[in-house]
Amino acid sequence: MSEMKIAADVIAAENEARAQALDAEYAALGETLARRGIEIDNITDKVSEFSVAVPSWGVGTGGTRFARFPGGGEPRGIFDKLDDCAVIHQLTRTTPTVSLHIPWDKADPKELKAKGEALGLGFDAMNSNTFSDAVGQSQSYKYGSLSHTDAATRAQAIEHNLECIEIGNAIGSKALTVWIGDGSNFPGQSHFTRQFERYLASMAEIYKALPDDWRLFSEHKMYEPAFYSTVVQDWGTNYLIANTLGPKAFCLVDLGHHAPNTNIEMIVARLIQFGKLGGFHFNDSKYGDDDLDAGAIDPYRLFLVFNELVDAEHRGVDGFHPAHMIDQSHNVTDPIESLMASANEIRRAYAQALLVDRAALEGYQDENDALMASETLKRAYRTDVEPILAQARRRAGGAIDPIATYRASGYRKKVTMERPASVSGGGGIV
Amino acid sequence: MSEMKIAADVIAAENEARAQALDAEYAALGETLARRGIEIDNITDKVSEFSVAVPSWGVGTGGTRFARFPGGGEPRGIFDKLDDCAVIHQLTRTTPTVSLHIPWDKADPKELKAKGEALGLGFDAMNSNTFSDAVGQSQSYKYGSLSHTDAATRAQAIEHNLECIEIGNAIGSKALTVWIGDGSNFPGQSHFTRQFERYLASMAEIYKALPDDWRLFSEHKMYEPAFYSTVVQDWGTNYLIANTLGPKAFCLVDLGHHAPNTNIEMIVARLIQFGKLGGFHFNDSKYGDDDLDAGAIDPYRLFLVFNELVDAEHRGVDGFHPAHMIDQSHNVTDPIESLMASANEIRRAYAQALLVDRAALEGYQDENDALMASETLKRAYRTDVEPILAQARRRAGGAIDPIATYRASGYRKKVTMERPASVSGGGGIV
Amino acid sequence: MSEMKIAADVIAAENEARAQALDAEYAALGETLARRGIEIDNITDKVSEFSVAVPSWGVGTGGTRFARFPGGGEPRGIFDKLDDCAVIHQLTRTTPTVSLHIPWDKADPKELKAKGEALGLGFDAMNSNTFSDAVGQSQSYKYGSLSHTDAATRAQAIEHNLECIEIGNAIGSKALTVWIGDGSNFPGQSHFTRQFERYLASMAEIYKALPDDWRLFSEHKMYEPAFYSTVVQDWGTNYLIANTLGPKAFCLVDLGHHAPNTNIEMIVARLIQFGKLGGFHFNDSKYGDDDLDAGAIDPYRLFLVFNELVDAEHRGVDGFHPAHMIDQSHNVTDPIESLMASANEIRRAYAQALLVDRAALEGYQDENDALMASETLKRAYRTDVEPILAQARRRAGGAIDPIATYRASGYRKKVTMERPASVSGGGGIV
Amino acid sequence: MSEMKIAADVIAAENEARAQALDAEYAALGETLARRGIEIDNITDKVSEFSVAVPSWGVGTGGTRFARFPGGGEPRGIFDKLDDCAVIHQLTRTTPTVSLHIPWDKADPKELKAKGEALGLGFDAMNSNTFSDAVGQSQSYKYGSLSHTDAATRAQAIEHNLECIEIGNAIGSKALTVWIGDGSNFPGQSHFTRQFERYLASMAEIYKALPDDWRLFSEHKMYEPAFYSTVVQDWGTNYLIANTLGPKAFCLVDLGHHAPNTNIEMIVARLIQFGKLGGFHFNDSKYGDDDLDAGAIDPYRLFLVFNELVDAEHRGVDGFHPAHMIDQSHNVTDPIESLMASANEIRRAYAQALLVDRAALEGYQDENDALMASETLKRAYRTDVEPILAQARRRAGGAIDPIATYRASGYRKKVTMERPASVSGGGGIV
Repeated sequence: MSEMKIAADVIAAENEARAQALDAEYAALGETLARRGIEIDNITDKVSEFSVAVPSWGVGTGGTRFARFPGGGEPRGIFDKLDDCAVIHQLTRTTPTVSLHIPWDKADPKELKAKGEALGLGFDAMNSNTFSDAVGQSQSYKYGSLSHTDAATRAQAIEHNLECIEIGNAIGSKALTVWIGDGSNFPGQSHFTRQFERYLASMAEIYKALPDDWRLFSEHKMYEPAFYSTVVQDWGTNYLIANTLGPKAFCLVDLGHHAPNTNIEMIVARLIQFGKLGGFHFNDSKYGDDDLDAGAIDPYRLFLVFNELVDAEHRGVDGFHPAHMIDQSHNVTDPIESLMASANEIRRAYAQALLVDRAALEGYQDENDALMASETLKRAYRTDVEPILAQARRRAGGAIDPIATYRASGYRKKVTMERPASVSGGGGIV
Repeated sequence: MSEMKIAADVIAAENEARAQALDAEYAALGETLARRGIEIDNITDKVSEFSVAVPSWGVGTGGTRFARFPGGGEPRGIFDKLDDCAVIHQLTRTTPTVSLHIPWDKADPKELKAKGEALGLGFDAMNSNTFSDAVGQSQSYKYGSLSHTDAATRAQAIEHNLECIEIGNAIGSKALTVWIGDGSNFPGQSHFTRQFERYLASMAEIYKALPDDWRLFSEHKMYEPAFYSTVVQDWGTNYLIANTLGPKAFCLVDLGHHAPNTNIEMIVARLIQFGKLGGFHFNDSKYGDDDLDAGAIDPYRLFLVFNELVDAEHRGVDGFHPAHMIDQSHNVTDPIESLMASANEIRRAYAQALLVDRAALEGYQDENDALMASETLKRAYRTDVEPILAQARRRAGGAIDPIATYRASGYRKKVTMERPASVSGGGGIV
Repeated sequence: MSEMKIAADVIAAENEARAQALDAEYAALGETLARRGIEIDNITDKVSEFSVAVPSWGVGTGGTRFARFPGGGEPRGIFDKLDDCAVIHQLTRTTPTVSLHIPWDKADPKELKAKGEALGLGFDAMNSNTFSDAVGQSQSYKYGSLSHTDAATRAQAIEHNLECIEIGNAIGSKALTVWIGDGSNFPGQSHFTRQFERYLASMAEIYKALPDDWRLFSEHKMYEPAFYSTVVQDWGTNYLIANTLGPKAFCLVDLGHHAPNTNIEMIVARLIQFGKLGGFHFNDSKYGDDDLDAGAIDPYRLFLVFNELVDAEHRGVDGFHPAHMIDQSHNVTDPIESLMASANEIRRAYAQALLVDRAALEGYQDENDALMASETLKRAYRTDVEPILAQARRRAGGAIDPIATYRASGYRKKVTMERPASVSGGGGIV
Repeated sequence: MSEMKIAADVIAAENEARAQALDAEYAALGETLARRGIEIDNITDKVSEFSVAVPSWGVGTGGTRFARFPGGGEPRGIFDKLDDCAVIHQLTRTTPTVSLHIPWDKADPKELKAKGEALGLGFDAMNSNTFSDAVGQSQSYKYGSLSHTDAATRAQAIEHNLECIEIGNAIGSKALTVWIGDGSNFPGQSHFTRQFERYLASMAEIYKALPDDWRLFSEHKMYEPAFYSTVVQDWGTNYLIANTLGPKAFCLVDLGHHAPNTNIEMIVARLIQFGKLGGFHFNDSKYGDDDLDAGAIDPYRLFLVFNELVDAEHRGVDGFHPAHMIDQSHNVTDPIESLMASANEIRRAYAQALLVDRAALEGYQDENDALMASETLKRAYRTDVEPILAQARRRAGGAIDPIATYRASGYRKKVTMERPASVSGGGGIV
């Protein structure tokens, strides 16, 4: 029995106030879907099985290079963070796992595991950090880490990743995500090829240490913190990495790490086709790596990504099981609220994609009936599936309206009193 | 009584087959909206009053610089085009006016008017063309038109616009839209300031000839057909034009004419605030001026634009009456179908924007409750308003499902037989 | 002895007027370079050996979807085009080969060869066309070609490519370039994976027919003429193609076919590293596939691309011999002038890249001295190498100032009288 | 007599080693320019008069939201910063003024002025900061400053700007630069119009307090730190601000604050034409507001901006005297070196623009000779003007090679010992 961060009676009371409307809307939606030959409960069941991991750093307030404006009750360490993550999962029943970031979340693995079990939380992919210098480290990552010109710096970065695997092994994680800030700010600063060769050699060392049942995710990003070139700049380079390293290596797609106008859903399709889609860092963006809440800016794009995922499921693509994780920076909202809303949006896109009439779509595609193919996607997309999402949450013991219930619970006020404000504003990434 | 291009019994039969489902879904939606304090019929009434003009050139198949692939039954001239436009309006009851493009649509104004009246169609803004050379014109627009270095070329372009006003006057139009291809392909080719001074002087001539109850719309575009600079490159320059010319001059916003990542809805807000929003050319785009069907790529963006329009309506902004027009290029679909679907999408965005709880939104904005403000928009947006749109069409005598009804009518097959295929593939813009 | 399109005495007279200044500036530059340890004649010799192919379609005036404004003396067919290409090579001594486009340039191979020999011109890569419908072809490419859903259409497109190989074989070409317009304009229109599978299967057929000493170049492009997705959208997909097809398949990089802000020189480096850089379509762009003159918009980017090429040469990368071709659309200039200027700009970037002190650069890279690494590139780049380029032309019998000499020759006036203007404005691509 | 941070004999020795080569190259360039009808000393004189301000924050190492990697000898406060700025000016003779940022640079105005005088430095525009919270301030800028919904927050932000004016007045500044981080991260978070009205009202208060001989610069930026909308998002809004406020209000153009692909030089031309160009924040960028060294990424773009400035000078535009300031973030270089190199690049672009043959250019523009117009700019641009820049520095007592001289001086080593490393890595903006 997990420890409950939100009192059961708060949830019950809030749900009670919304149950009648939900039942009516769920029934009406059921009838609409039945007319399309869809059994609503089948969708609700599939949605219930869909989960997405929460990043430990996501429950702290983010920031930019200009400032960070912390909110009340900022988590003081990994155990506070896990408490906050538990709230998210308790109300949404969508986020049963947490993704840790080392060194910030370093702690006795036994204590971590015990805390996770007490809260009903497991651990998703481990995240190493070589884009900033940890206190006391001997080599600086100012000019790179896994691709650094200096062998000692590369060795330190490799060693750090091995430690992440070790910690992950102890707490039940099954994947390592490697994102590096390596790149350059000036034409000429780095030799592209030699730099990439060094990166590949370092990654090969990490790959060698990977347990057999683990996956290694490399993550590409067009720019920031490097502003002229990055070592893993796009999915093309990311594919070369996964292909060079071996069968346990896969590509991670962060929705905000692409060039302007990029067709991301097509990259997803290509990686699926060539067996190298590892998973996602979900978020949304308008300009760059804005790390905004999933679905906040372009919800149709999120749906189109899920359309590819459900299509692959539908076609029974061999070995297809991408990892889902949120990766956002919450600068102006309560991070717990943003993560709940985002988990909901991600499930929404999944539910909408499940409603696509795939037989009809394939027919339109074969006949080059572009208009009806587009309409087939749009019809699924514009279905208001909120009743399905709410029902899935309620049936699993969560909240019909997670935000309202969370606000009613007074959790933020409580932790604001318990957790004294840190003195420093600090950087955006904790 | 208008001439009917689609037989009434076809519409009746198609509607009959869908009426029961529609009534059920309309009723269910009515209950859902009632729970939010909204009377569904009020929305349906407002939607019914909303219309958007169809561009005469939109009913022909478009193309790119690489090729044009005409479909069957391409209109052979303005009277065929008006027939096609009548089909769109008959089935959608959304597009009562047509926007003409001179010289292509030149004809005896009396005949134009008579044909329009017979079909129940009026005439929206006139569009001049100085981005290509008409057969027999004495000066070429290869190096520009209203901003050309040569006075005779400018005079010819001004004269052409005056003729457009004259024709428009005769058929009941009340606005002139000026979009030019003028710009440059090389740094240094044109002197930015002298070029813009010539443009302003030419436009002042046109403005002088504008009847008192007309509006003059200038349209900006970042690039294409000029690829280094355009004279009216963005809304900043567009505002300067409208402001310099006078109170009858306004800015037209085409959704596909902006730099990547541009926040278009904000431009709309700024133009409203400074009294210079003339209207829209609706379409959608992923990369450049793709001229895709409205709402096909980023439907949330279209909603956010309408959110600004409904907000202005709601606030009772003085003199606010933007013109609505579609401007698309249909390369792979039946243009009639694309225009019906687009008109529907535009009304959809309007309907969704009407559902925004503006009192709640203002409250969240005042409290900086970013998450709930976002949720307030999303709640309206994700409402499936198709029953409202379908009901509005049905009540006005149109089709519950315009595409299906159109296909059932056999109109395309019929005109394909009546209108022989033109020999030339020709350019994309007809 | 080749046929001379420009009279030798015109060249001699124009060179005579510029010889003294050139000699002085060449000598002064020689001294400057000597201070950097560089022997100027070595650079001039290397530059003299560098050539770039001219596209047959480049000598006609280009256009956009809005209009084409032809100039005087437009070539009426491939033999006129070859005459124009000969002018370019005669004056620049940089463009000894022409790249043909089928079906436009179809002619008796023997006549083609004879004409080429008479003019001193050879034939570079063959270009197939399946992005528009040729007169009389049975299947339309409206919905695709090599990736079309219909087998007969794919077969026709394959057959066309085989014919291109056959023609090329007869005239001495050694490569086939495949660029297709296939893609989609709407989400859902095409199934990304099935579409790409069809493409790969079609390309495998073409690959099978490729002579052993030929190379197959696939070319990626982000968008246009398709506006939602393209089959070969970026270098990642392009690499997958070349890798799937086999050792004779390579990737072609067109400088204008990328997403905004893309670091193109890095793509070049990656393709070199993985043995798949086939060559280039040189041009410049500010917004999309603008097809502007090479170096007209961002000359430093062109230099950075050549920096990678010279670096690979310097490192002796195995099997490194990329093809160089211009691919531009000349809308507002005399195409012959633009092609001469572009060939010169491409050689300029090559010459500048040869001046980079690579030993110093490698040292700065190893020490992470970003500023001096950048300065090392900039120092080479800002050297005014025009005297080297002019000297290389003069020594090979070309013009010190090709544009001025061309204008002095009266060639355009002469062909304007000889070649009657075509009636149709036509499309942008000839 | 100013205090010398670099010993005069170091400069003398370094110059001595380079004097002969410089004299030879200056003479050769002089001959080349004489052939074009240009007297080299006239250019050198004009270049000598050109200066650009250094931002006080630029001499500290910058950072990103991910990390900051400080270098040795980081300035501990404004007096250290002024010392570093003096080094830059001593060696380049290009940066006689410093732009302060309040509150970081707050100090007794008398001491500031005395220090500046001792070092031979004056004070350029004052910069206020309301994009982060200063220690101890009562209202937070988390949700905005001058446009905040809360009147007390706006009042605090206004008050801060008034204080900046007051300090500036005391030390001889003549301008206030206002850049705010205000905007929103979510659609709906802010009401665009009400937010902008509040901003304009706040700015009107500041404008009222502006001394008669001061200018008020507002600065636009597309995104960051706000990621959905910013209040002053582009030059269109910036123009509206300057126009609304009055004749002392002008627009500041930062080269990195625009949408992808934006033609910045055209914005410069428009602002000059309408009398509202205030000045520049020079830097370079490839993706977003990368704040890289001026001319490091796209030097031709920098030249094209200066081409507009020199053209305006040439035409004698009334009231034309834009402010020049560098605004960069130096993450991987010694900030002093980057600022010296950047000052040099800015002067380089100015010198190149002075070489443009404006009479010829105007002729080509009038005749629509696009190719020769482009060539006219390119000919000036590709002239290697380094001898002019070096001579200008030497004649004014600076270094022929500022970077080498700085390194020879041992200044960085010296201040690294004098200034203990700060404990905290801190944020990117100091």
